[in-house]
Amino acid sequence: MPDDPQTLYQSVCQQAVDIARLESAEALLGWDELTKMPAAGAEHRAEQMKLLSGIIHQRWTNPRLAEQLAILAESPLVAEPHADTAVNIRRLKRKVDRLTKLPQSLVEELAQTASLGQHVWRKARAEDDFAAFRPVLEKTFSLKRQQADAFGYDECRYDALLDDYEPDERTANVGRVLAELRERLVPLVAAIAQSERRPNSALLQQEFPIERQQRFGRRLSAAIGFDYSRGRLDETAHPFCTGLGPNDCRITTRYDARSFGSALFGTLHESGHGIYDQGTPTEHYGLPLGETISLGIHESQSRLWENLIGRSRPFWQCFYGEVQEAFPEALAQTPFEEFFFAINEVRPSLIRVEADEATYNLHILVRFELEQALLDDDLPVADLPGAWREKYAHYLGIEPPSDTDGVLQDVHWSAGMVGYFPTYALGNLYAAQFFAQADADLGGLEPMLARGEFHPLREWLRENIHRHGQRYSAAELVERVTGKPLSSAALIEHLRAKLGPLYGA
Amino acid sequence: MPDDPQTLYQSVCQQAVDIARLESAEALLGWDELTKMPAAGAEHRAEQMKLLSGIIHQRWTNPRLAEQLAILAESPLVAEPHADTAVNIRRLKRKVDRLTKLPQSLVEELAQTASLGQHVWRKARAEDDFAAFRPVLEKTFSLKRQQADAFGYDECRYDALLDDYEPDERTANVGRVLAELRERLVPLVAAIAQSERRPNSALLQQEFPIERQQRFGRRLSAAIGFDYSRGRLDETAHPFCTGLGPNDCRITTRYDARSFGSALFGTLHESGHGIYDQGTPTEHYGLPLGETISLGIHESQSRLWENLIGRSRPFWQCFYGEVQEAFPEALAQTPFEEFFFAINEVRPSLIRVEADEATYNLHILVRFELEQALLDDDLPVADLPGAWREKYAHYLGIEPPSDTDGVLQDVHWSAGMVGYFPTYALGNLYAAQFFAQADADLGGLEPMLARGEFHPLREWLRENIHRHGQRYSAAELVERVTGKPLSSAALIEHLRAKLGPLYGA
Repeated sequence: MPDDPQTLYQSVCQQAVDIARLESAEALLGWDELTKMPAAGAEHRAEQMKLLSGIIHQRWTNPRLAEQLAILAESPLVAEPHADTAVNIRRLKRKVDRLTKLPQSLVEELAQTASLGQHVWRKARAEDDFAAFRPVLEKTFSLKRQQADAFGYDECRYDALLDDYEPDERTANVGRVLAELRERLVPLVAAIAQSERRPNSALLQQEFPIERQQRFGRRLSAAIGFDYSRGRLDETAHPFCTGLGPNDCRITTRYDARSFGSALFGTLHESGHGIYDQGTPTEHYGLPLGETISLGIHESQSRLWENLIGRSRPFWQCFYGEVQEAFPEALAQTPFEEFFFAINEVRPSLIRVEADEATYNLHILVRFELEQALLDDDLPVADLPGAWREKYAHYLGIEPPSDTDGVLQDVHWSAGMVGYFPTYALGNLYAAQFFAQADADLGGLEPMLARGEFHPLREWLRENIHRHGQRYSAAELVERVTGKPLSSAALIEHLRAKLGPLYGA
Repeated sequence: MPDDPQTLYQSVCQQAVDIARLESAEALLGWDELTKMPAAGAEHRAEQMKLLSGIIHQRWTNPRLAEQLAILAESPLVAEPHADTAVNIRRLKRKVDRLTKLPQSLVEELAQTASLGQHVWRKARAEDDFAAFRPVLEKTFSLKRQQADAFGYDECRYDALLDDYEPDERTANVGRVLAELRERLVPLVAAIAQSERRPNSALLQQEFPIERQQRFGRRLSAAIGFDYSRGRLDETAHPFCTGLGPNDCRITTRYDARSFGSALFGTLHESGHGIYDQGTPTEHYGLPLGETISLGIHESQSRLWENLIGRSRPFWQCFYGEVQEAFPEALAQTPFEEFFFAINEVRPSLIRVEADEATYNLHILVRFELEQALLDDDLPVADLPGAWREKYAHYLGIEPPSDTDGVLQDVHWSAGMVGYFPTYALGNLYAAQFFAQADADLGGLEPMLARGEFHPLREWLRENIHRHGQRYSAAELVERVTGKPLSSAALIEHLRAKLGPLYGA
């Protein structure tokens, strides 16, 4: 006699929660490797992670789990699409279906090529040698085509890959919003580039003793609401945030004694990710209802705290006095306006990860357009460096003098991450749209921020976004929360409102 | 057609290495819990570890593995008992046989009772309430009897449990050596207690700034040979050493700004464990040939560096100048002899973990005798506190005023660890016997130590002990290395030679 749906559902949930526990053990192995592990431990760590991810993959692709989910997907438990049971069943089924669609041989070839690709890329970037990288990049895109075809898609191949990072999102929709953004952003950036006003950015490159940076960064991240009783902050070469359990979220940053902003804005950014992670409902841990929605929504939370709050006038009205006390040698004599202009400098530059709030999205646009062309075979890999330079010239008005500072700068493609880039820009767009709505709902955030009161905004985010886990897709959520579909209006308005007065542009 | 033995052997080794990788992942979860994890992560961590140890237990007790080992144990691969294949087969079979001898229900009851026991013990110790602890301790010993009977034994029940910590060792042999030790130690300790000479131990309880302790402890541990490129040192409430992989060994210590010795001798102790772990052959990782022999041999390595080296005259002749420079406020005016006497104070005391080099073994003797009596039902648990006081009076000449400072001081019994205590004393005995042999083989260690040359001794340990993994049992090894079976002679001689002149005893 078959189990009744409720019993089956409980069994499926138990399996998913157990897998989440194993995945979080693997995540700890990864965190430790980047933060604490002696370098000599790397080889063993790779073996441990391979073994553990094999066990995890085996559990996800256990045919019994797929069968149980197929039965549940036809049961009364999915009648109400936003009910707990329906959400968990739908999202789990989706995940299992995707994982089981890929033949084992393709999974292995993708993993091997990603590992080789990163190795080759690292060397090619160091030596400014795109030709050396080309063969493995061709192989990567050929495999990604096969992967997309195995997943299947309605409109275009890119959809199938985008779905790994931004579930339910469509390439056409992202393209539409980013084109809209580009149209308004390119002239704004060009006007700023022609402005005679220039901030004194050198004042952010003085001596900022690391120990005081650590104290101040920790102070601000706690102030905006990263909960250190359920998380911690460490130092790594590349900052990240990783959730290791329902009450254990770890963020990292990097310190540069000659930079005011690098660690600080990085800490605010990762704290934003962490606050989202800490805001998901712990009672649903290991199930879709306890998980974050997409990379785009995740990024919206980090960008909101880093940029919309962390580079805002009221935020620094609140904290600039403390900054001057913490770094008197560097900033005691610097007027507020000068500091504020410096942290909001806009300048077209070559490197994405160092880009400012406005030009950042143009860097993404370049990559989004190029990776679609590569995937569709419209652009031969051999022509990629030229196409890259052309787009930079067109959108940002500058051209990289080398591939190292051009097409070789990012790790993503070498690691097989195709479809990832647009989530950064989606994050910026969502952030601005959510922030505008919170501002309206809470009757004006400015005075609260100027008083250092972040609690109302954090609760608004928790209530409207975090606590829902994956109950809604990103598109559903943004409509539900802001009453409008995703658009570039809020971001453009935010940038104009802040940058216009600074640059007179 | 059955596999040939070589193929079977390879398959068994692969299974064992994979299990070791999972065990080391679990070890990382444990290390992280004690060193880095936010406290709120504890519940999830417990679930992760339970799941992972279930997977590990399942693999060890997979009937196919037992069958394969049974075939191998009859194959030509075991003809030469100390050959690689024979050692790995014998030790793996032993492990699998022991694990499969326990019924699942008993394994679960033991785990539950250990968990409950520690919880109850913690409260009972805090409230000096042995009566509250008594029921769960009775249950524990009843289960340990069942466990011993399930394992089986030739001579006595205690043998079956001792074997978990000191494989192949016999209770009768340990009893003989410890009785011999007691006979010579009790009068020595009594003579010291009656001596008029007393060190000025207060000089070790001045202000020793923690940051300088950290630097100095790290300096000494690196000097004796703990390899920081393959390991790290962190801070925890209770110091420990854990091997997380062939090139990743982690030690911890605790700092007390009012104690010279607590962190420093703790660091030397854990470094000794770490040097052993780092000295096992990495090419045999995950197999018996790549693993340490027993807790007794492990403890011999930590005690050797902590006591035989770390409290020796030549060691401090080498480093006392540096100590005075590091802590000038506390020690600049203190003559060497005064410092040296203070770090070698002998004084009967109530608490095992604070005991000195000489009286420590009497603390162990009390526990070893009592746990045997409890296991054999010769001593009702209700009578344990009285028996404890009696033995302390008899062996150490003092009586605990409370059970908190008496029978409730150690966690071991509450956690079901019966048969563990004697390995501490065995460690002291092995350490002295190995040290005497190294001294003879290397033509006198004193001048080397006084010059801070630890390399010859470390290489001697590596060559004679570490590199063999589990090729020999502890008893075989000590005979092989020193030409004699384990005895108390070397330890007594060491203590007399050092303490006699200090105390005129």
